[in-house]
Amino acid sequence: MQDKVTPRILPGFMELLPADQILFNDMYDKIRSVYESFGFLPLDTPTIELSEVLLAKAGGETEKQIYRFNKGDNDLSLRFDLTVPLARYVAAHYNDLVFPFKRYHMSKVFRGERPQKGRFREFYQCDIDIIGNEELSILYDAEMPVVIYHVFKKLGIGDFTIRINNRKVLGGFFAAEGLSDKIEEILRVIDKIEKIGKNAVIKELVSIGVPEDKTEGIIDFITIDGTRKEMIEKLRALGIENEVFNTGVDELETVTDAMIMFGMPEENFKIDLSIARGLDYYTGTVYETAINGHPEFGSVCSGGRYDNLTGYYTDKKLPGIGISIGLTRLFSQLRDNGLIAPQKGTMADVLVIPMDKETLPYAVSVANKFREAGIPSDVYYGEKGMKQKMKYAGRSGFPYAAVIGTEEMGNGTLALKDLLGKDGQKTVTIDEAIEILKERKD
Amino acid sequence: MQDKVTPRILPGFMELLPADQILFNDMYDKIRSVYESFGFLPLDTPTIELSEVLLAKAGGETEKQIYRFNKGDNDLSLRFDLTVPLARYVAAHYNDLVFPFKRYHMSKVFRGERPQKGRFREFYQCDIDIIGNEELSILYDAEMPVVIYHVFKKLGIGDFTIRINNRKVLGGFFAAEGLSDKIEEILRVIDKIEKIGKNAVIKELVSIGVPEDKTEGIIDFITIDGTRKEMIEKLRALGIENEVFNTGVDELETVTDAMIMFGMPEENFKIDLSIARGLDYYTGTVYETAINGHPEFGSVCSGGRYDNLTGYYTDKKLPGIGISIGLTRLFSQLRDNGLIAPQKGTMADVLVIPMDKETLPYAVSVANKFREAGIPSDVYYGEKGMKQKMKYAGRSGFPYAAVIGTEEMGNGTLALKDLLGKDGQKTVTIDEAIEILKERKD
Repeated sequence: MQDKVTPRILPGFMELLPADQILFNDMYDKIRSVYESFGFLPLDTPTIELSEVLLAKAGGETEKQIYRFNKGDNDLSLRFDLTVPLARYVAAHYNDLVFPFKRYHMSKVFRGERPQKGRFREFYQCDIDIIGNEELSILYDAEMPVVIYHVFKKLGIGDFTIRINNRKVLGGFFAAEGLSDKIEEILRVIDKIEKIGKNAVIKELVSIGVPEDKTEGIIDFITIDGTRKEMIEKLRALGIENEVFNTGVDELETVTDAMIMFGMPEENFKIDLSIARGLDYYTGTVYETAINGHPEFGSVCSGGRYDNLTGYYTDKKLPGIGISIGLTRLFSQLRDNGLIAPQKGTMADVLVIPMDKETLPYAVSVANKFREAGIPSDVYYGEKGMKQKMKYAGRSGFPYAAVIGTEEMGNGTLALKDLLGKDGQKTVTIDEAIEILKERKD
Repeated sequence: MQDKVTPRILPGFMELLPADQILFNDMYDKIRSVYESFGFLPLDTPTIELSEVLLAKAGGETEKQIYRFNKGDNDLSLRFDLTVPLARYVAAHYNDLVFPFKRYHMSKVFRGERPQKGRFREFYQCDIDIIGNEELSILYDAEMPVVIYHVFKKLGIGDFTIRINNRKVLGGFFAAEGLSDKIEEILRVIDKIEKIGKNAVIKELVSIGVPEDKTEGIIDFITIDGTRKEMIEKLRALGIENEVFNTGVDELETVTDAMIMFGMPEENFKIDLSIARGLDYYTGTVYETAINGHPEFGSVCSGGRYDNLTGYYTDKKLPGIGISIGLTRLFSQLRDNGLIAPQKGTMADVLVIPMDKETLPYAVSVANKFREAGIPSDVYYGEKGMKQKMKYAGRSGFPYAAVIGTEEMGNGTLALKDLLGKDGQKTVTIDEAIEILKERKD
């Protein structure tokens, strides 16, 4: 006997059993269908790119996480997000695209982080982005969270709140406070307020050189609360004379007004001035999404407006807006917390079971008729006893079994067995069986 | 101005423009829906695996093509097919699976080959496999090509022929010829007969040590022709007294008989004794698929029976049968030869165009109603003139535009413009528009 290799995978990689995979794919399909219903075009880019191209912008933490390697003379990297490949794609195919260019991309990205609970090294991102040529209407900033609203509604995973802010509001405020040279650093600190608390934020602000007498004002500012309208009013009432700030407030008002116009309920979103997003390429609107009652999940869907993502590849001005669902992480959080659970264990709605070799041809014709009627069907071909055949049907989780003996074959019927419900077994014609199986689906 | 990085990808990687991507996804979805209609369960395994695990069986040519690299202390590899990950998965999750285990897996695999026309380094494989526990009915060997038959029918890419053979027929024949010690080598040579021709095969057979007086007999054997029934008869009439050979002929007959019983037309398949498949793990039935009239495509769908794929991971006996469509290559061949062409350029069926800011809220409500009725819809939010808005609709390829002015808003109608057909423009109610747009889809 040869030595066996233990069949294992790396930590930080998700691999599911079939029932969970069906559940995962169901979520994936729902997200995709909403994205497509808003007209986003599909995109698929290479998993492996030239490091020189992919990492044109990267540095620091990101670069350390990259799966980077040589093959032949090439320095290669696995993509770590879907945003940089989009920028590269748009720059490369500029002449063949129509702008505004709306695309979705739902695929795996790779980050060699130290694995910990809820962190994955290989995970699905489900992105939508809209790229304009020279300009992009601010109304698209409102469409993004509306699409996400429909996604989360369709996923049916409970209440959620999309938090929205605008980098210009923050940047303008800090500039007016005389902190122009520290804006990026300050944003990274205040972004953590929910995680580390008010006092820790003050301490960090001081440590990066913010004067102590300004920290209270900063905290007061980013914790301004109220309804959407009240908050806009409060921001205006501050009387800050900074153009960037006032543009930001106007944008925030326009975007949130439009979200209402687009049909999004007031209860599913909220202006939150502490939302800054860590990434430095955001220039305007920013979003995060929380599952209500589960702050430990963190933001399950984030994004924002960027004015110059393609700057490393082209001189063209191509502003964009994007948002992304980290599906692998979201799935694992929902599953681990019992907020979702497998609904079915089989793709087929029915297992057709011939009692013996003689009834096999008829059994096959029954399965073919089921499939022609749009009912996914499986046939059990193994030469086992009925007990074992039924055990297979039960363990697999088939909703129905269609048992076929000599009698059924003789009179063109089948014994339809309800394996999950309470209908028991009844002898029906093929057409009657189709009706019952179709009804179940509706 | 900063230096720009040329936004390029590596040769051997496929990246599509949106209309082609829509076409590709349509093929992907059709394959998936047929696989699911036969009850195959979805599977998704990590792209990156431990080299020790993934390459347990590999060697020679395969190993050279692997994208292999170190990250931290780990020796990692990108998967080069979906079959080895399946073997690893089944061995690892043996206790949680129900056998026969039917799964499909449609995802990218990676092979660092020297790129050439029609060869890709990153490509989609669309696999189905059925794994049995201890045993697996030979009837599943017949189900595989039947599934593929339905796939190719659904793809609608013209006539095709699935060629079927059995390794035992070949192995038994060569054993009876006294060539037992050279079977693997001989199979690799005869597998090339279509590509290199009869004389080149004879030359290669001699070069690997096959006695010259046996080469004619080998060629005669592998070119036996006739109908399915005639070929089985001819094989039996050879009177070869070798158990493996006779088992193989019996299997070939059983499988092809069952394919007919399962509803596959005689014209879509053929016994071909020259089909051997290069891979050494096949032990019985083998398949290749040709697009009629396009021998230059090579086999677009291949597979076979294997008795011991999981042997490197477990002592359990887990025989299986599998078949795989190389979708990226098939797509590129069909597209390059004009056998397929993009059918649409947008995911949305209609672009709703508000003529100005005042009509925007009504335009949005129209789009929302379209989407509620299941019609993917896009709204143009840019503040441009009507001419530019219509140009965007035309260039994008929207089938319809719904133009909304003050008048339409006033009386609850819209101007529906047929952009691809000959219906011109007509003013209709929202419900009428929904009816027209739905009719088009059916």
